[in-house]
Amino acid sequence: METETADEIIAATSRALCKYGYADLTMQRIAEEASMTTAAIHYHFDTKAELLNAFLDDLIDRFEARLACDAEDPRERLETLLDAVFTPSQNPNEFRVALMEMRGQSPYQDSFRERFLALDEVMRSVVATAVSDGIDAGHFEDADPDEVARHVVTIINGAHVRAVALGEDANATRGIIERYLELQLGWAPASGSEVVA
Amino acid sequence: METETADEIIAATSRALCKYGYADLTMQRIAEEASMTTAAIHYHFDTKAELLNAFLDDLIDRFEARLACDAEDPRERLETLLDAVFTPSQNPNEFRVALMEMRGQSPYQDSFRERFLALDEVMRSVVATAVSDGIDAGHFEDADPDEVARHVVTIINGAHVRAVALGEDANATRGIIERYLELQLGWAPASGSEVVA
Repeated sequence: METETADEIIAATSRALCKYGYADLTMQRIAEEASMTTAAIHYHFDTKAELLNAFLDDLIDRFEARLACDAEDPRERLETLLDAVFTPSQNPNEFRVALMEMRGQSPYQDSFRERFLALDEVMRSVVATAVSDGIDAGHFEDADPDEVARHVVTIINGAHVRAVALGEDANATRGIIERYLELQLGWAPASGSEVVA
Repeated sequence: METETADEIIAATSRALCKYGYADLTMQRIAEEASMTTAAIHYHFDTKAELLNAFLDDLIDRFEARLACDAEDPRERLETLLDAVFTPSQNPNEFRVALMEMRGQSPYQDSFRERFLALDEVMRSVVATAVSDGIDAGHFEDADPDEVARHVVTIINGAHVRAVALGEDANATRGIIERYLELQLGWAPASGSEVVA
């Protein structure tokens, strides 16, 4: 019961973030979005920062769940990661903008930075493990798994800022990752997409 | 005389941005930083948005000036670009954070977006031209110059967001670009840097 309410508040936070952006997010607006009183919100989350930390934790949990690919085949695991990163959610643009605003707050908000570091670690670890397993299984040419992981995740970060700052379709960048994997590993995901010039 | 004052105001804007960040930047704070009255600032720039547009124009001009490399050798031009992007300015972190905040405002501020698109065009064009010239001159292996340009610039964008959100040394990403150029073109800049694991 308690957990359900907390989950509802977190879902309302996500919708309010998309609607108003990070800068104009207030507990009042989250309460309206959740059809609750601000007192009810405060009963579960003392401060807005605490609620936003919970929102980021939930985001990371759900991202990890989407990555929880039981596939033996490391190629399938890499495809699952790219799908999770590039498949649009319900409000892809609004969500990306809000997340970028929160990334921009990291220098002032240690609790955000910790969580973005955790998210980065999750992504890099999935790539590095899949690359290492793929090399062992003879699917990929030899390469430094940590280097490939850092490269792929940095391009994903770049895709995010380009989508927000330049209004570019994030999928335009998926093709760049695919061609990099082809070049580096001699293998690319089947679901190739076109570069938008 | 007029131009000098405008230049002073723009330099003060840059310092105020580093000191207070974008969200807390006010005309009053810019005036204090410039040791002028707000009336004097408003005489040159009607609105804060107009002043920030001028600040971004100046930033792009100075960046282009740093890239104005007369070198015939396209390898030297690529090195000049990487130096311009990765060599720390006076307040590298504060400056990066402020610039990232402004990138995050692009969806709400068309005049910012235009300028970030122009900056992106400048960077991509320098890389694409150097790659194309280098292939013609036999320095580089064959590749699609626009694809290489997009790849390099997306990693630069990723380095920026990683520096701000994760507190990572942007130079850690320079090595990723160098190893990508080696892989793609069979050539990498001499000034190799180490990946920070």
